Amino acid sequence: MAVGKSEFPQALEIEGVRLGTACAGIKRTDRDDVVVIEMAEGSRCAAVFTRNAFCAAPVSLARRHLAGSPRWLLINSGNANAGTGAQGMGDALATCEALSRLGRGEARGVLPFSTGVIGERLPVDKINRVLPAAVSALSPTGWDKAAGAILTTDTFPKGAKRRVRLQEREVSVVGIAKGAGMIHPDMATMLVFLATDAKVEQSCLQHSLRRAVDQTFNCITVDGDTSTNDACVLMATGRAQTTELRRGMPEYEIFSKALLAVCAKLAEMVVRDGEGATKLIRISVESAATEAEAHRVAKTIAHSPLVKTAFFASDPNWGRILAAVGRAGVAGLDISKVAIWLDDVYIVRGGERDSAYTEEAGRAVMAKEEIVVKVSLGRGECCQRVLTCDFSYDYVRINAEYRT
Amino acid sequence: MAVGKSEFPQALEIEGVRLGTACAGIKRTDRDDVVVIEMAEGSRCAAVFTRNAFCAAPVSLARRHLAGSPRWLLINSGNANAGTGAQGMGDALATCEALSRLGRGEARGVLPFSTGVIGERLPVDKINRVLPAAVSALSPTGWDKAAGAILTTDTFPKGAKRRVRLQEREVSVVGIAKGAGMIHPDMATMLVFLATDAKVEQSCLQHSLRRAVDQTFNCITVDGDTSTNDACVLMATGRAQTTELRRGMPEYEIFSKALLAVCAKLAEMVVRDGEGATKLIRISVESAATEAEAHRVAKTIAHSPLVKTAFFASDPNWGRILAAVGRAGVAGLDISKVAIWLDDVYIVRGGERDSAYTEEAGRAVMAKEEIVVKVSLGRGECCQRVLTCDFSYDYVRINAEYRT
Repeated sequence: MAVGKSEFPQALEIEGVRLGTACAGIKRTDRDDVVVIEMAEGSRCAAVFTRNAFCAAPVSLARRHLAGSPRWLLINSGNANAGTGAQGMGDALATCEALSRLGRGEARGVLPFSTGVIGERLPVDKINRVLPAAVSALSPTGWDKAAGAILTTDTFPKGAKRRVRLQEREVSVVGIAKGAGMIHPDMATMLVFLATDAKVEQSCLQHSLRRAVDQTFNCITVDGDTSTNDACVLMATGRAQTTELRRGMPEYEIFSKALLAVCAKLAEMVVRDGEGATKLIRISVESAATEAEAHRVAKTIAHSPLVKTAFFASDPNWGRILAAVGRAGVAGLDISKVAIWLDDVYIVRGGERDSAYTEEAGRAVMAKEEIVVKVSLGRGECCQRVLTCDFSYDYVRINAEYRT
Repeated sequence: MAVGKSEFPQALEIEGVRLGTACAGIKRTDRDDVVVIEMAEGSRCAAVFTRNAFCAAPVSLARRHLAGSPRWLLINSGNANAGTGAQGMGDALATCEALSRLGRGEARGVLPFSTGVIGERLPVDKINRVLPAAVSALSPTGWDKAAGAILTTDTFPKGAKRRVRLQEREVSVVGIAKGAGMIHPDMATMLVFLATDAKVEQSCLQHSLRRAVDQTFNCITVDGDTSTNDACVLMATGRAQTTELRRGMPEYEIFSKALLAVCAKLAEMVVRDGEGATKLIRISVESAATEAEAHRVAKTIAHSPLVKTAFFASDPNWGRILAAVGRAGVAGLDISKVAIWLDDVYIVRGGERDSAYTEEAGRAVMAKEEIVVKVSLGRGECCQRVLTCDFSYDYVRINAEYRT
């Protein structure tokens, strides 16, 4: 199940980036589960990672290798290599070493990424055995296959691209992502791989990625569970032959906007494909005193199992939204100034049901597949948006059966 | 569905307290939904209420009336009278006035309580029409009928009692409670009505109630949603003819322990009867630096939909517990000192899977109906316990169908 149709974009390609996939049979033998990405020499890399204290071994290692000049990404699905201690670090390193031997480089030139079940040992031999096949398959047009190989409980591959003109040159930003559970990114995200042919100064590359992630992946939630393996990487090959982009340049802002658009598109796809999702819910909290306060209220609504099951049932049980706003911990909230809308239907005005509201109007909105919940706190000028999905039987089924 | 069998205790009675019920047909016509409780003259009352900013009209009114000398409690199920603004306040007051006329007292002598759907107008006429019947039915043995009349999605009535000897006299503490969804009490609880025949000084009465609630109802969660209508009331009639209990007296501590035991029993029943519950999960976080930190970690585990669906599936997917600990926001957590047990099975030692752990041992624990999750953080001496239940298809069904 997923909300709406999402087609994988045609002709995803970045000069200087090649991707290859292979089937190691880690969890399933009927699809590829290993991806190798190669960046051309001189490429730069920025990344953000999960803040879960139990971050996985590949996250620790990728963070360390990022300080060098990485040339390769090695990704597997089906096993998270998390909660595996020193053994897990050794296993992740062993796969990096195997790939670096094939690429005639050093192990610290490889950034490893894993996604899948937590607490089981990474099957190093299975992965290393198919690395030659993945390297042979390297191709600039391998993005769609890579998007398929990184999936776990996702139901469709997720890709996005933007093109902008900078200094008379065409510059691209592309990306792929995977969801679909344990989605509540905290300063990072699930697995996202972005690339551009723009040439961007290193600290600006990190800055633009951090900014885009904060506004997109950090504003979505499927189940409130922050993964141990969240990672978002941006590769910049510089092959578009622009001058180096830096803060303060108008071109840097154009580039950053394109990056933000790609991230926003991917983040929305992750929610559309959230485990068991049947509805896409856009929560917008306005007139808050601070952005943090708006974010907290939006997340409280987005995490409420009662709100999410009401959306699944298409039931305009707006009392649950009101109760979530009330328990979000906004100090000194004056409920007589609170207003709530479902799409453009005024539901709560001055802290109570709008006198013109009818159950029929509420039902009409709830029947839709995509719904906007707008909350106005009447306290200030700040606002925040959060994307989430509903909570269905299928969420329970998928997560009850996950390891079987 | 509910975890285990809970029988309603025999011979619940407190001298000076009488209860009567009636059927107003607020949501259902096949059971009583209105309760009147009368306290003898000279009784004292303590109460704690929800901290949800959108607290219901009856909560606001009861808080106000508590400052007087309340003689009556008026409770209805089927309608929460929350999110109803000034109209809701007027409606709650109108029912208090109707009862006070029958009792020849004043409206401020009545504490109103409501539970049920949020945002719909309280059917004042329906309630007032059956008040004479409820008053005629007043009886010292009405606790069981009252426990049945306050239920919403609960599957069984919840009652508990303790008897202690104080100053050569038998003193009782009894209580009834309702769950079963929107359960994440915050400084208060769902609806709980407690009574004792002990004579307790007013500020001590409030103090002992607050302390008991903090250790019991504030340590349970079904779905993380704090209700708009939480209230917990303790009535003390003083009819046991002890001297007035005050802090510093050994008898006060004995009384407080009995109160704590009754609250703990009721709180556990609420979780056993949590919406859709098939398992009772006792989460114990130890060796934390502070109690707040232990509580936060325990609640993060207890709120995780991924952890809860794994318990529903009897799947020892302990990586989800580990991921929840990791995202609980414990600053500077040294994961190499973290240990996790399922009952007495050592799962995680030094931050990774214990080398002696087997999937079979994990499965054997998960197959049980009641499970202890113990987490040791290796940071200090503080600990906290939280009770929760699993997350099943039935939770989704109950909350998807709640208003139909």
